[in-house]
Amino acid sequence: MKTKHLKLALLPLLALGALGASLGVSAQQAAGPKPEQLIKWRQSVYQVVAWNNGRIKANVDGQYNKDEVIKAANTIAAIANSGVGALFAPGSETGKGWHDTAAKPELWAANSKAAEYSANFAKEANELAKVALLGEQAKTKEQFGKLGKTCKACHDDYKAKE
Amino acid sequence: MKTKHLKLALLPLLALGALGASLGVSAQQAAGPKPEQLIKWRQSVYQVVAWNNGRIKANVDGQYNKDEVIKAANTIAAIANSGVGALFAPGSETGKGWHDTAAKPELWAANSKAAEYSANFAKEANELAKVALLGEQAKTKEQFGKLGKTCKACHDDYKAKE
Repeated sequence: MKTKHLKLALLPLLALGALGASLGVSAQQAAGPKPEQLIKWRQSVYQVVAWNNGRIKANVDGQYNKDEVIKAANTIAAIANSGVGALFAPGSETGKGWHDTAAKPELWAANSKAAEYSANFAKEANELAKVALLGEQAKTKEQFGKLGKTCKACHDDYKAKE
Repeated sequence: MKTKHLKLALLPLLALGALGASLGVSAQQAAGPKPEQLIKWRQSVYQVVAWNNGRIKANVDGQYNKDEVIKAANTIAAIANSGVGALFAPGSETGKGWHDTAAKPELWAANSKAAEYSANFAKEANELAKVALLGEQAKTKEQFGKLGKTCKACHDDYKAKE
């Protein structure tokens, strides 16, 4: 009897849990930052990556400043290792940060390659941070190209065209 | 005579330079990203810092996850070392990135302490990244407090209230 009462008492919680799951909202997400905040943060993250990508591109295509490339590569690597996936928590599939999210719904699908793409991005970003220490323009350019491919792979699949 | 001609020929350039200086626009700035882009990037940088600050705060005030704190501290440190000062290039005193800049004109004044504040921020951020490796909540909390003071010092002087 006691067990039965407990089960009945849990029913509303289970129903709430099922509702949350059907909306793609986990308990953790409900307690954490709002989707709009997560979207604003992830849009900001990619702007910071874009700033540093631009600096590295200017250096590999023009006059090379070793220190500037190291700083930029370290920033991209730190971001790539920082756990940006948490900014794509369930519940943040749609919404507006600085602007409407450009992430496609497929990013959250069961067969999503987002985690794999993210790991590839981190791998090549860490390698770029290492290569940058050598201060050799050609080697940096080559590794920067590899990093760019990991960006493109994810954008092709999961970023809506503007 | 040759020197005199050269001097005369340079006059328009000097005048243009003076005009640029009076407008707060350097030659480098004119060739680089537009003020609106710089403002968008720096606003993004501070959002990424805010995201990681929030993660560290949650860890030092609640359940402590060493790895998460390390990732967050490394990201803040990389940004602090990345040369964010370039995003405040002359010419970007006013303008709109994601929103109107909150930087006060005093940041660009001759007696500005911005560079000093920025160096303090980097110093304490680098120390936090070191302390984070120890995985000790109390020590991280103490150093995180020191970092926060460097943020506040600059905001108090150079960030307009919202």
